[in-house]
Amino acid sequence: MTQSSLPIVRLRPKANARAIRHGFPWVYANELVTDRRTKALPPGSLAVLEDDTRQAMGVVAVNNGSKLICRMLDPDPGARIDQAWFAARLSRAQQMRERLFDAPYYRLIHAEADGLPGVVIDRFGDVAVIQPNAAWAEVLIGPLAAALAEVTGVSAIVKNATGRARGLEGLGEETVVLRGAVAEPVPVAMNGATYMADLLGGQKTGLFFDQRPNHAFAARLARGARVLDVFSHVGGFSLAALAAGADQALAVDGSAPALDLARQGAAQMGMEARFDTRKGDAFDVMAGLAEEGAQFDLVVCDPPAFAPSRQALDAGLRAYERVARLAAPLVAPGGYLGLCSCSHAADLTAFRTASARGIGRGGRRAQLIHTGFAGPDHPLLPQLAESGYLKALFFRLAP
Amino acid sequence: MTQSSLPIVRLRPKANARAIRHGFPWVYANELVTDRRTKALPPGSLAVLEDDTRQAMGVVAVNNGSKLICRMLDPDPGARIDQAWFAARLSRAQQMRERLFDAPYYRLIHAEADGLPGVVIDRFGDVAVIQPNAAWAEVLIGPLAAALAEVTGVSAIVKNATGRARGLEGLGEETVVLRGAVAEPVPVAMNGATYMADLLGGQKTGLFFDQRPNHAFAARLARGARVLDVFSHVGGFSLAALAAGADQALAVDGSAPALDLARQGAAQMGMEARFDTRKGDAFDVMAGLAEEGAQFDLVVCDPPAFAPSRQALDAGLRAYERVARLAAPLVAPGGYLGLCSCSHAADLTAFRTASARGIGRGGRRAQLIHTGFAGPDHPLLPQLAESGYLKALFFRLAP
Repeated sequence: MTQSSLPIVRLRPKANARAIRHGFPWVYANELVTDRRTKALPPGSLAVLEDDTRQAMGVVAVNNGSKLICRMLDPDPGARIDQAWFAARLSRAQQMRERLFDAPYYRLIHAEADGLPGVVIDRFGDVAVIQPNAAWAEVLIGPLAAALAEVTGVSAIVKNATGRARGLEGLGEETVVLRGAVAEPVPVAMNGATYMADLLGGQKTGLFFDQRPNHAFAARLARGARVLDVFSHVGGFSLAALAAGADQALAVDGSAPALDLARQGAAQMGMEARFDTRKGDAFDVMAGLAEEGAQFDLVVCDPPAFAPSRQALDAGLRAYERVARLAAPLVAPGGYLGLCSCSHAADLTAFRTASARGIGRGGRRAQLIHTGFAGPDHPLLPQLAESGYLKALFFRLAP
Repeated sequence: MTQSSLPIVRLRPKANARAIRHGFPWVYANELVTDRRTKALPPGSLAVLEDDTRQAMGVVAVNNGSKLICRMLDPDPGARIDQAWFAARLSRAQQMRERLFDAPYYRLIHAEADGLPGVVIDRFGDVAVIQPNAAWAEVLIGPLAAALAEVTGVSAIVKNATGRARGLEGLGEETVVLRGAVAEPVPVAMNGATYMADLLGGQKTGLFFDQRPNHAFAARLARGARVLDVFSHVGGFSLAALAAGADQALAVDGSAPALDLARQGAAQMGMEARFDTRKGDAFDVMAGLAEEGAQFDLVVCDPPAFAPSRQALDAGLRAYERVARLAAPLVAPGGYLGLCSCSHAADLTAFRTASARGIGRGGRRAQLIHTGFAGPDHPLLPQLAESGYLKALFFRLAP
């Protein structure tokens, strides 16, 4: 019943054993006794974690190469991390998504909060994409993928190993089809729109499920509107707006392949005539639109993470302010402006302050009408809730 | 064209004139020159505010009896605060609500953020309820009500002057029908449910529109569920859950009239058989249910403001923790717990921490799946966005 063969790793006395017992999922490198035996463990090894009094605390995954030297997998020190264990975690996660969503298009596993530390799994109907962003999941990809097929019944599984987090774990990059075959791009229905997802070549897992509730909020503002979707990727906000009755939408992005997928989505929806794209640097395009005197009833800016780390925070906040300053003059009197941040380091207050300042410097006054986060298929551990990375602010601008 | 007859009030040099120019709506008592002439102004007087260099900054409402001695009404010092002025503000606010909501049931004016400082107006179809929580609105209730009838076309207008904020303005309490007639209770459709609103005798304006998006999120979790709605008022969460297919719902509140309205709502929906109520102290009732071994798939607690002020913060956070601790054991394995706070003083982080601690002390582990605020008919000035009082946290509890 126990994996008696598992090695043992031990907390230093100064480690926060209490927090770990209460559900904190990580042990930092300086909290672990790193004797020769521990140092010799290959990345992704399983071990039993003990506190400094030799009390067993659970099964952890060890990676000597990572600042997060242990990730808690199961508080039961006798747990067997096998296909059945994965299947139980996946089933639990799936139950919640099935309650919340009508169709199997969602993030199925959101890492720590879903009990699979460092693992992200997105479901696109008959295809699932695994991002194993921690070494242990790379080691155990076999039973994980088998359990995924068993629980979800998907016919194809992709391993997308291009996440930024993998570098911190010392993992390489590769995207491979583990099971079945994938016919690309995959059409994904969300908020009445159709998005085309490029699961093998795309950013992240090919489509961003996290913005779904914010797309939905923007759609409520879109009836009859002229819409500008800046940093559009595959058309997240613009296609949702068109589905909700927008008059016309312009998507701006630096990536030609992303805009091509956006156009394919619009075509699937029969909305090509109301959809346009402009490839280029978003800041340049916004400045150009202002020179042309262009006005939109709804402008949404969803830039990449400008403040991915504490060090980049000040520069990142200045970039968010600049986005707001350039976008505000493009909003028609009484129109709406949505500003998003997917930066961990910029918290809600800092991002809101930068956005409000940018709107003011853009010569406008605003009400804040909505604050949104990632959807419920992106749960958080309460202990790590400050790290909720995605923020979306919707303002109404005065005439 | 100018109201040349308006008296002048002047900022002290130390006042934050810059913030006011950028849209901050208040002058605190210690920021204003309070000479004999200013002190003689009756509560609710209009005046032109000047900075310490005698530059006019706009038209303000003055109340010597309030800590907020001036509220900015219009940055144009020549603005006439008359029926047309009110009509313009009301029209602008109505445009946004008409875009967002299918039917005229919403908060139409949310005070400062909608350009009418201290004024709250809720729309219940053919009836509007004004809460004039600042002295100036009491003085100008005539042109305000006339503009309200003109813009919205409502046949009845109620003045509900029972808000807690009125005490700070030195205003008395009274609820009167200013125009037309009101047949009570008024049925209100939201999220597929029917709520009965008591506009003349109720708390606030008889119904809480602010929780609408959080009711909607709870409803997504409710299919086939056993639901417990603690501090239910007129059944906000329980009736929305029933409309979304909950198996049964139990509403708990200390107010017999509120529970009676909730039962009337359930009857209107044809759902009496699935709806039950229990009158009593919420803490006692939760403890009693735990003793009975009762289990629910969805529990939502929406208590009154436990931390209405900075002074009450510590005690308030302990009360929120206690709510979570008593509610958590009532949630079935894998079920959901919604916890709400309408306390200004308890910010999101503090409330989330208290809630998570309570869940832990209640013997459970949780994922945070959703954070919600008041709906978009409760906009905020970006400068006052920290004051967003309503927070709703939805957790999924582990087996």
